Amino acid sequence: MTHPFHAVILSGGNGERFWPLSTPDRPKQFLTVFGGKSLIRQAVDRLAGVVPMERVIVVTAETLVSATREALPELPEENIVAEPCRRDTAAAVATACGVVEARGGEDAVAAILTADHLMGDVKAFRRVLRDARDAAAKTDCIVTMGVTPNEPATGFGYIRVGRAEPLGTRTVFFRAAKFVEKPCEKTAKRYLASGKYVWNAGMFVWKVRTMKGALAAAAPELASLEAAIAAAQAPGPVMAKVYPDLPRISFDYAVMEKFPRILVSRGDFGWDDVGTWAAVDKHLRTDARRNVVRGPVTLLDCEDSVAVAEGPAIAALGVRGIVVVSTADHVLVAAKDRVQDLKRVLAEITSRK
Amino acid sequence: MTHPFHAVILSGGNGERFWPLSTPDRPKQFLTVFGGKSLIRQAVDRLAGVVPMERVIVVTAETLVSATREALPELPEENIVAEPCRRDTAAAVATACGVVEARGGEDAVAAILTADHLMGDVKAFRRVLRDARDAAAKTDCIVTMGVTPNEPATGFGYIRVGRAEPLGTRTVFFRAAKFVEKPCEKTAKRYLASGKYVWNAGMFVWKVRTMKGALAAAAPELASLEAAIAAAQAPGPVMAKVYPDLPRISFDYAVMEKFPRILVSRGDFGWDDVGTWAAVDKHLRTDARRNVVRGPVTLLDCEDSVAVAEGPAIAALGVRGIVVVSTADHVLVAAKDRVQDLKRVLAEITSRK
Repeated sequence: MTHPFHAVILSGGNGERFWPLSTPDRPKQFLTVFGGKSLIRQAVDRLAGVVPMERVIVVTAETLVSATREALPELPEENIVAEPCRRDTAAAVATACGVVEARGGEDAVAAILTADHLMGDVKAFRRVLRDARDAAAKTDCIVTMGVTPNEPATGFGYIRVGRAEPLGTRTVFFRAAKFVEKPCEKTAKRYLASGKYVWNAGMFVWKVRTMKGALAAAAPELASLEAAIAAAQAPGPVMAKVYPDLPRISFDYAVMEKFPRILVSRGDFGWDDVGTWAAVDKHLRTDARRNVVRGPVTLLDCEDSVAVAEGPAIAALGVRGIVVVSTADHVLVAAKDRVQDLKRVLAEITSRK
Repeated sequence: MTHPFHAVILSGGNGERFWPLSTPDRPKQFLTVFGGKSLIRQAVDRLAGVVPMERVIVVTAETLVSATREALPELPEENIVAEPCRRDTAAAVATACGVVEARGGEDAVAAILTADHLMGDVKAFRRVLRDARDAAAKTDCIVTMGVTPNEPATGFGYIRVGRAEPLGTRTVFFRAAKFVEKPCEKTAKRYLASGKYVWNAGMFVWKVRTMKGALAAAAPELASLEAAIAAAQAPGPVMAKVYPDLPRISFDYAVMEKFPRILVSRGDFGWDDVGTWAAVDKHLRTDARRNVVRGPVTLLDCEDSVAVAEGPAIAALGVRGIVVVSTADHVLVAAKDRVQDLKRVLAEITSRK
């Protein structure tokens, strides 16, 4: 039996966390500030040798289709699946399942992947992805690529790891004992110390047949969407009709937390969700005073700062722990320890308009 | 005997202290950020009722002539005297004297005024200016409009005040006992405490005959320049020929410190030289958290900061004691207590180009 392997990259985002460089029309995955190539370009490139380009599918908002084409010119046009409105990840996964079934049947295997994360160790990522593909093909489980936590992060969901499931792969898979939402810091510390939790990085692999069963059991309206898309010539018309009435709900919440057969790996492939401006010094080169600089920037006696000039050139003098970003339309100056409140600034700007 | 009264506004500057809003092509006197009208416009407007427009003369760099015309459209064209190159204030004052003599003869009186300072109390300024005019007309003294210091500033020269000279004016004039250069802080504190010093604000009034004598005694080449301009149809050709060979020297140094007959008043008309970005909160309206804001600016939890958006809109989050300025070409972010090093930043930027 063959299990043609597809990669479905969910490419959404509202462009708030890296504002003003990111905007609703150009969310984080299109930024090139993290390593020269855009994150979505990196997400596709790291599939080389694992998933051929004709089986790479991007599910994104209609408003981002042209940016996606520009970022990924060699991706077949029909591999960009445009959502007519935002309905969170449950709808996107059901859509993806329908598209993959239409192309590869019920034995096809697909990975749901992210468009806007960094993987520091691409080789290790590919190994885990291949092993997850094999595990999904030979079992009736959804196989989640968990990430070993290295700090008590409160920004991610966690998965409690159960007993190991011997599958003969180099990567060891475990039964997922429990999905938990973003914890408070105290709980996160406990999770980290216990060694029994991994981060839920939103990447999971499944056989179409398995996903169909999971949808049917947990979310009948999503199962209908999937079936309609699988039977259609193209997903567009079905989505246009069905999407507006779908609830906004995450796949974790709609399906994953209820599904009994989930495997999880403990990944360690340098995964980073590139969460905020304050965190970019973790993965971008810094100068001797721990500053990160991009574009025409002049620093004098600055420390621990981030300066990204995409618009006017930036000159900074004697500042510390500051993020400065320029675009043609906006300048952001923020204390690093306050960037989590960027949304409040955007709300303020929007309310003034 | 009539003493037609002229005002000569020296309008130079290299645009460094308020960079990037100010530039060599648009030094501080052209900025409108300090009160809606440009400082040079304010300098002319505050002469209303004291000096008629046809007797207001602006001495400026050739490169600033068109900006000056734009800022002062009603100023007669021939009242803008363009210096072919920068030669500091001594040459500018000698030129001014020649121009005033050509127009009003040796009995004419002229005030040398500044283009880029604020006067908080215009009424008081006018009173002192009129009294200085009368003092200059009826004596053979150069009459300096000193400013009572209110802090131990190290950025200005000081004048030691001698005995009072009864002239029958409402303003009391004193003999200037000594001109001293910018002091160190310790000395400045001593000056302030003594009550015997005033700031040298660069404003002084004189009769043409008096100035000619002072130039002849202290700086023969400037006396020649003055005489040539006084005899010429227009100052331009003389200046083009003479200026390049003149030394770069301030009028204080070339003439004032040597001239025996100087009167000085103790002014208190809200004079402010608007020295740096860090000091603008002294004369611009601040919000409840002592921020100064100009243009499209959104602040969230910021304190003691200055945000001026002439280019891209500025959003600032959680910063304190910071100056942020945007123009179409540059963004400056500086700690307030470091703005005195702005020249170093500009030197760095220039050296990279």
